[in-house]
Amino acid sequence: MAEQAERVVPLTDPPAEDEKGPSKSALKKAAKDKEKAEKAAKRQAAEDAQKKEAESSDISKNDYGELPTDGAWPSDFPSKDEVPRVQLPQLEEYLAEIASKAETPGGPHVVFRASVENARSQSAKLAFLVFSRGGASIQAVVAASDELSRQMVKFCSSVPAESYVLVHGLVKEPKEPVKSTTIQMLEVHVKKLFVEGKAEAQLPMQVADAERPIPVEGEEEAVDGRPIVTLSTRLNNRVIDLRAKHNHAIFTIKDGVVALFEEFLRSKGFRGIQTPRLLGAASEGGANVFEVKYFATKAFLAQSPQLYKQMLIAARFEKVFEVGPVFRAENSNTARHLTEFTGLDMEMEFEENYHEVVSLLEELMLFIFNGLKERYKRETDLVRSIYHVEDFKLPSAGSVPRLPFSEGIKMLREAGEELGDFDDLSTPQEKRLGALVLEKYGSDFYVLDEFPLAIRPFYTMPTASTRAAYNPEKPNVGYSNSYDFFMRGQEIMSGAQRIHNAAYLEKRMKEHETPVDPNGEGLRDYVAAFRAGAPKHAGGGIGLERIVMLWLGLPNVRLASLFPRDPGRLTP
Amino acid sequence: MAEQAERVVPLTDPPAEDEKGPSKSALKKAAKDKEKAEKAAKRQAAEDAQKKEAESSDISKNDYGELPTDGAWPSDFPSKDEVPRVQLPQLEEYLAEIASKAETPGGPHVVFRASVENARSQSAKLAFLVFSRGGASIQAVVAASDELSRQMVKFCSSVPAESYVLVHGLVKEPKEPVKSTTIQMLEVHVKKLFVEGKAEAQLPMQVADAERPIPVEGEEEAVDGRPIVTLSTRLNNRVIDLRAKHNHAIFTIKDGVVALFEEFLRSKGFRGIQTPRLLGAASEGGANVFEVKYFATKAFLAQSPQLYKQMLIAARFEKVFEVGPVFRAENSNTARHLTEFTGLDMEMEFEENYHEVVSLLEELMLFIFNGLKERYKRETDLVRSIYHVEDFKLPSAGSVPRLPFSEGIKMLREAGEELGDFDDLSTPQEKRLGALVLEKYGSDFYVLDEFPLAIRPFYTMPTASTRAAYNPEKPNVGYSNSYDFFMRGQEIMSGAQRIHNAAYLEKRMKEHETPVDPNGEGLRDYVAAFRAGAPKHAGGGIGLERIVMLWLGLPNVRLASLFPRDPGRLTP
Repeated sequence: MAEQAERVVPLTDPPAEDEKGPSKSALKKAAKDKEKAEKAAKRQAAEDAQKKEAESSDISKNDYGELPTDGAWPSDFPSKDEVPRVQLPQLEEYLAEIASKAETPGGPHVVFRASVENARSQSAKLAFLVFSRGGASIQAVVAASDELSRQMVKFCSSVPAESYVLVHGLVKEPKEPVKSTTIQMLEVHVKKLFVEGKAEAQLPMQVADAERPIPVEGEEEAVDGRPIVTLSTRLNNRVIDLRAKHNHAIFTIKDGVVALFEEFLRSKGFRGIQTPRLLGAASEGGANVFEVKYFATKAFLAQSPQLYKQMLIAARFEKVFEVGPVFRAENSNTARHLTEFTGLDMEMEFEENYHEVVSLLEELMLFIFNGLKERYKRETDLVRSIYHVEDFKLPSAGSVPRLPFSEGIKMLREAGEELGDFDDLSTPQEKRLGALVLEKYGSDFYVLDEFPLAIRPFYTMPTASTRAAYNPEKPNVGYSNSYDFFMRGQEIMSGAQRIHNAAYLEKRMKEHETPVDPNGEGLRDYVAAFRAGAPKHAGGGIGLERIVMLWLGLPNVRLASLFPRDPGRLTP
Repeated sequence: MAEQAERVVPLTDPPAEDEKGPSKSALKKAAKDKEKAEKAAKRQAAEDAQKKEAESSDISKNDYGELPTDGAWPSDFPSKDEVPRVQLPQLEEYLAEIASKAETPGGPHVVFRASVENARSQSAKLAFLVFSRGGASIQAVVAASDELSRQMVKFCSSVPAESYVLVHGLVKEPKEPVKSTTIQMLEVHVKKLFVEGKAEAQLPMQVADAERPIPVEGEEEAVDGRPIVTLSTRLNNRVIDLRAKHNHAIFTIKDGVVALFEEFLRSKGFRGIQTPRLLGAASEGGANVFEVKYFATKAFLAQSPQLYKQMLIAARFEKVFEVGPVFRAENSNTARHLTEFTGLDMEMEFEENYHEVVSLLEELMLFIFNGLKERYKRETDLVRSIYHVEDFKLPSAGSVPRLPFSEGIKMLREAGEELGDFDDLSTPQEKRLGALVLEKYGSDFYVLDEFPLAIRPFYTMPTASTRAAYNPEKPNVGYSNSYDFFMRGQEIMSGAQRIHNAAYLEKRMKEHETPVDPNGEGLRDYVAAFRAGAPKHAGGGIGLERIVMLWLGLPNVRLASLFPRDPGRLTP
């Protein structure tokens, strides 16, 4: 069929050298075309002449334009020695520093690169731009003069917002403080301006839209008559969205949490590890695990480094931590679930009692919270100016409320909740308990200890009294040496003492509420690690995005992920 | 079928209360069983009595044994105030510290936990053990006395090697220096010993075997007549293998590289990022990418954070780094390929020229190398005592040899290699060039700059002269602003200036030797990032395991991965 179709002779466009000679209509068309071409050539020549004329009379022709493809600077651009390069966030500091020795006529010269927040022409002789970089912004003036052409004013006023530019200018005091920029007592008088990265005039969303909080469902049409851009649109255009100042602050804080986590643990003698994400079997429960095509076989994505960090304890690593992505194939489309997030994991031997580990983890979290308060105050305040939320209350005197699970149940019952001794808490119950603890202990951060055995993983160590009261008919009744950490009533960490005795581990694997096969592929090596003699140990896994979300009181965990992944989102 | 099968009456095991009454043979069997049970009860009673007798006469019965399941210490164990807890690596230091004030009769008491390297009985009254922890080992003596029973000597001498124990002992000077331990001028006289984690007597391999280098292929039967355990057996029993001292050192060094990488970049204003591993499309070339079942659709595992770190530059992040797993579905079973490894990635804006970035990366690598020399000398020496290799030669005076690719080709040709101007180097050629550079510049570390355009990814910026000589017929001829870093003649890093202009990027995507579709799902968002205005930028990606392997001269990259993954290995 395809071949036949190609042999069909076109009806409207006969071949140029038709054997029969050109038709009348073809001759007519040729004449018309010729005329058109002549006209176009004339027009082009006139334009070229005009352009040449304009260029030759343009005194600024070497002072503006677009940089070449690789962004190389014009050869006559002032060198570092002639004019210092000062980025906008350091500009005020730099000027204060040179204030005493500044002798440049008209003010100090600077060269910098920045993005264009906006550009507008006041008249044919005057344009205003706002440059920004690293959270700082400044107004710029482009004024026609003996040394600066109207053509240059026109060019500058038409640089599309969000373009990246290279600027040489004079810094002066404005006639009156500029209200719309962060640098208010200074402005730049542009001498040269080149576009390094040109933005398209029509972007799918504006950074100004990203600077506003995400809408509460159903309230997308609210503020100032301007529609509020939905979370979904923002995430679809995440690169533009991320340019919002508070988004930069969120990810500075997120990296701060990682840095604080590592700093604290390294100072305590922990060693960072990298355990595999590709597993030969769905070792931690098959339901929520992603399957991977692995050459002729299949692999599974790690839901946590749990089994591996324990195996490293068995390998005598003593104290380990890991920062890395973990994957959950949970089909949950809530504001607090992601299919890929960053796990902050640790595991350690302890001497006598697993509460040594709980204490160290409490100390770790306080180190992170206090570090955020001290080092990231500006960023925290910036985010809170967009998402208003109560300040995060830390326990006074450094003693973190640590409640046995049974005590939590008691508090909830006294508050009117109905639930059994060994029931897992629902999300609303968790939040309720968080509020009760805040009221009673004045802290947004607390630890719930000794969870019911039945609702924890098979490798969790039962409490001594639960083991003493062991009943083979009800092997899962009782409590365990396990704990969750909460921020603002939401879980951020889960941990426990693990079983380090291979025979007992195998027993628990079989008698757990959801039994697993100790000889199964995914667990054989894990159990073998303990057969080779292992010390007692405990640890925990923290969700990085949860900490960031709850520290800042963000309404959705996706806001704490650069490129969030959920059951419906794999892009950008 | 299943239901029918269940109704079949068993032939060999009639119900206990058979209506016909017991048969003769059944009666016989019952009598026999009764006799057996009586005998067993008698035997048990005799054993119990003997045990009781032994126990009551055992003066040490509370001083040894196995700890309970959770490893809780015996209640009469000395408290921290009574006897300090000192781990073996700190023992000598601690004793020096208390030397002046030590007044304990017989020597200072210590309590510690350690693994048992070996245990042997000299006689019924004397046993020797070697304890080890954190690279330190010490000899222990268990001698029967008025205060220590022969039963305890027997118990201690039979603790399986690799078990984990809790010890209370007296530290004394040995009669003569102990040759087989790291602590040679001290020994422990055991007072109490409890097993916390018991190892099986027959382990699949010995730590002593893991302490030897992996065999060269075909030489598995060599040293001391003892077979050398193959790499495969070691990796199958990785937990035991990792207990070898030099393996601990390898992973201390590996974490050191990560810490140094982060420390340097943070000090330069870089921000750590977490980009997704699950991608909606195979954006960097479909051949070597793993496919994931993602709910009703499919996802792909990131081969690098390349596109995302560039998108964050477009989002004004200025300078970013990431440490995280990357995945390559390459079916290469060589000593230097893994399917999952750790990428150390960075990307940054630059002011004028991409060589600013190359210089910073050179500085970064020198910071890492010098940091390893200073902070990890002990570990480096330890590994080199197993894998003998030349010291890693750093460039003198801090100036890293940086050769244009064309210069590399010239050197290879002068050395007799035959290759074209734009040919990619084979692995042997790379190693050859490394040797030539070492000879000429005295450095095991160097940079090859300005690679041929055709052998680099589509997003690589051509050099200015290559762009100037652009020929649409041969759009891929020429060089590019790209570079590789080498250690001992093997590539550890690849990087380049990237194209930041969307239109030019689209052009290059189409005309690249392996064209890609700029509108394709995986690249649409990437190109869109540059349409929104992006600064010029460059960066690089380093293979963490490669650095460790080449720093230490390890014969196989798998030795630098805790749980390596290759086409044939997904476990443990």
